[in-house]
Amino acid sequence: MAVNTVLERRFFPAGETIFREGDKGNVAYIIQSGVVELWCGRTCIAELRDNAIFGEMALIDGAPRMATAKAQSDINVILLPRAVFDAKMEGVDPFVIKLIGILINNVRNFAKMVG
Amino acid sequence: MAVNTVLERRFFPAGETIFREGDKGNVAYIIQSGVVELWCGRTCIAELRDNAIFGEMALIDGAPRMATAKAQSDINVILLPRAVFDAKMEGVDPFVIKLIGILINNVRNFAKMVG
Repeated sequence: MAVNTVLERRFFPAGETIFREGDKGNVAYIIQSGVVELWCGRTCIAELRDNAIFGEMALIDGAPRMATAKAQSDINVILLPRAVFDAKMEGVDPFVIKLIGILINNVRNFAKMVG
Repeated sequence: MAVNTVLERRFFPAGETIFREGDKGNVAYIIQSGVVELWCGRTCIAELRDNAIFGEMALIDGAPRMATAKAQSDINVILLPRAVFDAKMEGVDPFVIKLIGILINNVRNFAKMVG
């Protein structure tokens, strides 16, 4: 996907919150540099680095953010807005869509157990 | 997906193990009737009922089963073999494939935290 040339970039300084658990989400993020922490309640569930995507689930199922994302270091991210997502999902087999829905539910259920 | 007419069905009596954590998986399951428990170690992570799919992750990424599936009651399932899966995944946008990979990783990582 040749997104790098057309999509918006954003910088977050170390310590800044990118989004909070419970927020409505309209964008996903691809990390270009730096480290992002994902927190469920008081549990750090992931440290993400270069090329990792986060924030994609709220975009797919419209549910609130299940985790809080925080910049551990200064970070640069590429923003993936809903329209790009929707374009990518267009024409995808309904079975695959259902599969993605199941996987997202699984992740959200686990997050509840961990957070 | 009109699978019900062509795919194999199977019966598991209450208490029987359908697959174990660590098994290699070549089939997913759709529950027709009954209740299935998924266990990560000593933690029951899910109780699944009618129309739920389970066992799909090993099919997609080829990694060993992350959970043990056990029939809580007598259950009837439809088997979804790898070939059907592969056919469904053919031609899916690489971005969507990557997304599914991310979601599966997320589920597996959570399972490690919970199990």
